[in-house]
Parts: sequence; structure tokens; C-alpha cells
Amino acid sequence: MEKQPSIAIDAMSGDRGIDVSVAAALAILAEHDDIRLILVGQEEAIMAALNDHGAGLSDRLRCIHASEQITMDENPSHALRSKRDSSMRIAIEQVKTKTADACVSAGNTGALVAISRYVLRTLPGIDRPAITTTIPTATGHTHTLDLGANIDCKAEQLVQFAVMGSALSMAVDNVEQPRIGLLNIGQESNKGNEVIKETDRQLQASALNYSGYIEADQIYQGDLDVIITDGFTGNVALKAMEGTAKFIAAELKLAFNKNLVVRLAGWMAMSVMRAVQKRIDPRQYNGASILGLQGVVIKSHGSADQVAFQKALETAYIEARQQVPQLIDSQLGTLLK
Amino acid sequence: MEKQPSIAIDAMSGDRGIDVSVAAALAILAEHDDIRLILVGQEEAIMAALNDHGAGLSDRLRCIHASEQITMDENPSHALRSKRDSSMRIAIEQVKTKTADACVSAGNTGALVAISRYVLRTLPGIDRPAITTTIPTATGHTHTLDLGANIDCKAEQLVQFAVMGSALSMAVDNVEQPRIGLLNIGQESNKGNEVIKETDRQLQASALNYSGYIEADQIYQGDLDVIITDGFTGNVALKAMEGTAKFIAAELKLAFNKNLVVRLAGWMAMSVMRAVQKRIDPRQYNGASILGLQGVVIKSHGSADQVAFQKALETAYIEARQQVPQLIDSQLGTLLK
Repeated sequence: MEKQPSIAIDAMSGDRGIDVSVAAALAILAEHDDIRLILVGQEEAIMAALNDHGAGLSDRLRCIHASEQITMDENPSHALRSKRDSSMRIAIEQVKTKTADACVSAGNTGALVAISRYVLRTLPGIDRPAITTTIPTATGHTHTLDLGANIDCKAEQLVQFAVMGSALSMAVDNVEQPRIGLLNIGQESNKGNEVIKETDRQLQASALNYSGYIEADQIYQGDLDVIITDGFTGNVALKAMEGTAKFIAAELKLAFNKNLVVRLAGWMAMSVMRAVQKRIDPRQYNGASILGLQGVVIKSHGSADQVAFQKALETAYIEARQQVPQLIDSQLGTLLK
Repeated sequence: MEKQPSIAIDAMSGDRGIDVSVAAALAILAEHDDIRLILVGQEEAIMAALNDHGAGLSDRLRCIHASEQITMDENPSHALRSKRDSSMRIAIEQVKTKTADACVSAGNTGALVAISRYVLRTLPGIDRPAITTTIPTATGHTHTLDLGANIDCKAEQLVQFAVMGSALSMAVDNVEQPRIGLLNIGQESNKGNEVIKETDRQLQASALNYSGYIEADQIYQGDLDVIITDGFTGNVALKAMEGTAKFIAAELKLAFNKNLVVRLAGWMAMSVMRAVQKRIDPRQYNGASILGLQGVVIKSHGSADQVAFQKALETAYIEARQQVPQLIDSQLGTLLK
């Protein structure tokens, strides 16, 4: 079942580009001896960065040259049409040609979704890919999708997201029957719009382990493995969470600076606070999966440092090993009638 | 401009009913000598509660008997059709007949919106009422609407919410030209669905002080006085914020119990933490306004204690004094062409 994964890395992507991607690549190579990597980007720059680390190419670390680069603010359809030799596109094409089992980029999310969808195609029965990330909970974590790839969703798409999320949780968390919830603004059956109600009916009728509606303040309770929502609502919820975490951290810092006694307490409490902040910040769970494609594609946060980029590579490694796309494909037939 | 407001109180509402509403009523009577109150509910029970406080009726504190009560889980349309003599309805009717200038209830939100809309009607030019509450920010607070009364919104409705929020901010915050933002999943003009884009166009064309799109993680920055969103998204965002605040508080408590040194720091830090928690918890800003009606209607949190219920009464007092509905009415003509 498990295989030795090869991962193509869009080495030019992210705020800090090659510096971060090459350092993270070398770190994960040392971590897993069955992993193989392909660095895609400006060959000279990649070789220079490797050289800085006293490293070079090997049969486990290859390099493919790409002459172009997609910028963060580039229009996705422009990037798709006119950047045929971009590092992002060449990296994705390695997955298409089976040269790689997964691809990781810290670049433009819209472009990554559009080009992945165009090059790799969605799995049969999946209309559009969805973005998911793990959110920490009181008991572990939960996978929430979609987080922004699909603004308007039909019920059929939301049900597909449920299958995708369920397969992901099976594969990476080893959960046998992932518990699934549908994000709504109340738990009574009369709550929500028509799409939500129709999705609820279809999920009830499916073989998925569906628990019904969940409200946004219950996400952290950890009762569910997968939470389904359209990309607009999911994106707003995720950013509301991020904003709250940042706001509370800033308010605590202010409050702890008020007088000497609390400043001392604050000093003693700082490491505790940092640990908690790390645990609650969704960006620390770096490596969002673009699910529903015929291949593993992972989005790293643009501002990722080496540790965070390495986490995104780790996510790609796990999903490739567990063959998540193949599992979604087989689950689609089993769970929906 | 300002008047001496009379407030009708649904005295039976909320988890702790009369105990809380009567205590809060007596407290605010002592606080403002120009306020007049009408307690609506079971007359005997109200008189007994007043008696427990050594208080009685006066020309500033009246009581109107209501034989029925709307429960928290009652279907709003059922409550509207069949509970003609409920404390909530009788309280709202006091505003209709100008016996009161505002009404406050801690009861069933759906029923309160439905009955208020039926009895008071919306202002000319307003399709449906919207719920708003204040959310703390780094620099003060912001008014966000809608928070759940309208699941699907047309652009025209969202623009009406902007006028309503703008008038509210003028009246209660004394802001001359409230800055308005539209909640979206990105700040670029190509982001969002058709309703969002059309709302953006209409807001640009209006005389409102419109700043464009805002993402959910920017709500706390305090750059805006009013944030506009549909009730589904607004409700999810608010609950995501509440959930995050609760989760962080629980995680901090756990972390501070880990060993003796951090436990000491935690003990010293507890009062700081409680203060911050109070500041960030949206429910502490008790008293959500149901805007767009021909009268002031305030929803208190169902679990409000005396202090929180008193804040809801205070909100009603301010909005009645500042004649918020009249201001919305006059702003509708000025701001939209």
C-alpha cells in the first residue's frame, strides 16, 4: 500500500523563495531516507543555494530548470494561460507524468488551484478541487473544507467535499469512520439555506458517518474529524479564528505590561503563552491540501519559514505515501450511491 | 433631539427570567433618573420579585400583565401566530402604540425578529431587519451586521444594512462619517461572489463612507466603524470568534496547570486574563440591536446575568434617546440616490 514518495517542489515560491525551500528540502531529506525530491526553478540559483549548504544533487535530490515564475498577485487565469514554463507549472507537471507523487508550492493559491486542476484534472465524480487544512481542537485536530477554492457550492459539491475529507482523515489520521459535520448557523433542521438543507439530506442518505449540523463555536470541541462548508464561509471562519488568536495575544501582551507584578507574571507566563499560541494558530499547521485532484498538491503558507515549509513537505510525504487521491477515488464509489 | 425614554421589558425572558430582569430594571432606574420602565409578564410574579427587593411600582416603573410566554426552542412562526398574549409580544406592542420607545427581550431571537417585524414593520426602504452587535477592536469597537436574521441577502439589502449601521454608529458612537467595510475573502476586486461584487458597486456609488472589502482577520484592527455581511457569514464569523476565545482560555488554563512555577505565574496572571477575556468575549457586549424597524428592539443574551441584562437595557436607553430608527430613516434618503 505505502510507497516511497517523490515530491516536486516549486522552489521559487513563497516570500523567501529558494532560501527557505532548499533548506527545508535538505532537512526533510535527512529526516526520511525513503523520500526523493525534485527542486523546480532557476537551476543556477538552486545550485548556488545547495552549494551554500555544502550540498549537491544526488539520485534522491534532482533539479529541473524552469525559466519563469508566477507572482503572488498574478491573476490565476493569466498565470495558467501564459506561464507555461513557470516553476509552479513544471512542478505540477511532474505529478502528471508520474515523475513525482506530490507537488508543494508556497506560491499564489488561485494559480496553484487553477493550474493543478488544468494539468492534473479532478478525479472522476469530483466537480472541483477543495482546499483543506487541519484546525486544532481540544482533543486533536479536525479537517475543514473548503477554505476558499469554491465560493458558491452546490449540494453535490459539498457532499463530494465530505467524501474527500473522510478519505483524508482515514488516510492521515487512521480513523476508520471519520465523523463529519456540516457548518450551519444552528443545529435545528429548519436552519440554513436551501443548499445546506439539501446537502444535509444527501449526507443523511449517504454511507458517510454524518453527525449533522455544527456551529462555528463548536469546531474546537473536537467531536468531529471533518467539517464541511463552502469556500466563502470556510475562508471567513478560518480568518476570524486567526484574527481572534492574534487579537487575544496582543491584548494579553498589553495587559501584562501594565504594572510590575503582572509584568513579572507575564514574563513567567510568556513561554506558556507562546506554546498555546503556536498550538492555536492555524498557520502553524502548515500545508493545506488541494483535494479532489488526480495527484497530491500541497499549498504552503507564503510566509512559511524553513520549519513551516518542512511541515508542508511532510504533509505531501504522508499524503503521497497513503495515496490519498486513490483512496478518495475508491471511497467515492463506496460512500455515495 | 434627545428624549426621556420609556423601555418595555420582556420580564419573563432569558434563562433566569424575572429574577434577572427585575434586578436589572431596578439597577438602571437608579442609574438614570430620566428613564421609565414597563415590566411585561406575569403580574403576580413580577410584584413578588419587586417585593423581594423591597421595591414597588411607581410612575417610572409600571407593570403590564401578559398571560403567555414564548419558549427558547419555539418555532418563530408558531410564536407569531399563536402567542398573542406573550410577554414578548405585549412588550413589542408598547413600542407600536408609542407607550414605550424601546423594547428589550432575552428570549427566542427568531421569534423576536419575526414578531417585531410583524408588529412594528420595517422602515420605508428597508426590506428586512438585521441583527448587529459591537465587536471589540484594538482601537474601540465595530458594529457588524447582519449576524443571523437574513441567511440569503441581495445586494440591495446589504446596502440597506450599510445605511443602518452607519446611522447607528453616528448615533451611539458620535462618529460623523462612519467608515464601512464589506466582508469578503480577499481585498482584490475580482474576489467574492456576484452579490458581493454588486454590493461593492452600489456602495461605491452611494454617499456612504465606504472603504471596500475587508477580510475576517482584519475585523479587530479597528479601521472600520461598520462591517457589512449576510446573516449566514456574519453568524459563522461571530461564533468562530467566540469559539476561538473560549478555546484559547481553556488552553491557557491547561498550560498554566502544568507545573508549580507556571502555576504561580498563572495565579498571578489570572486577573489579567479574566480582564482580557471579558474584553474579547462578544457576549460581554450584551444587547444586540435589531435594526431597520420602526422602533428600537434590543436582544439580550439568553444567559445574561443582572449586569449583562442591564447593559442591554443601557443599549436600549441610548438608542431610544438618540432616536436611531428616525436617524436611519433620514439617512436612507440622504445616503442612497
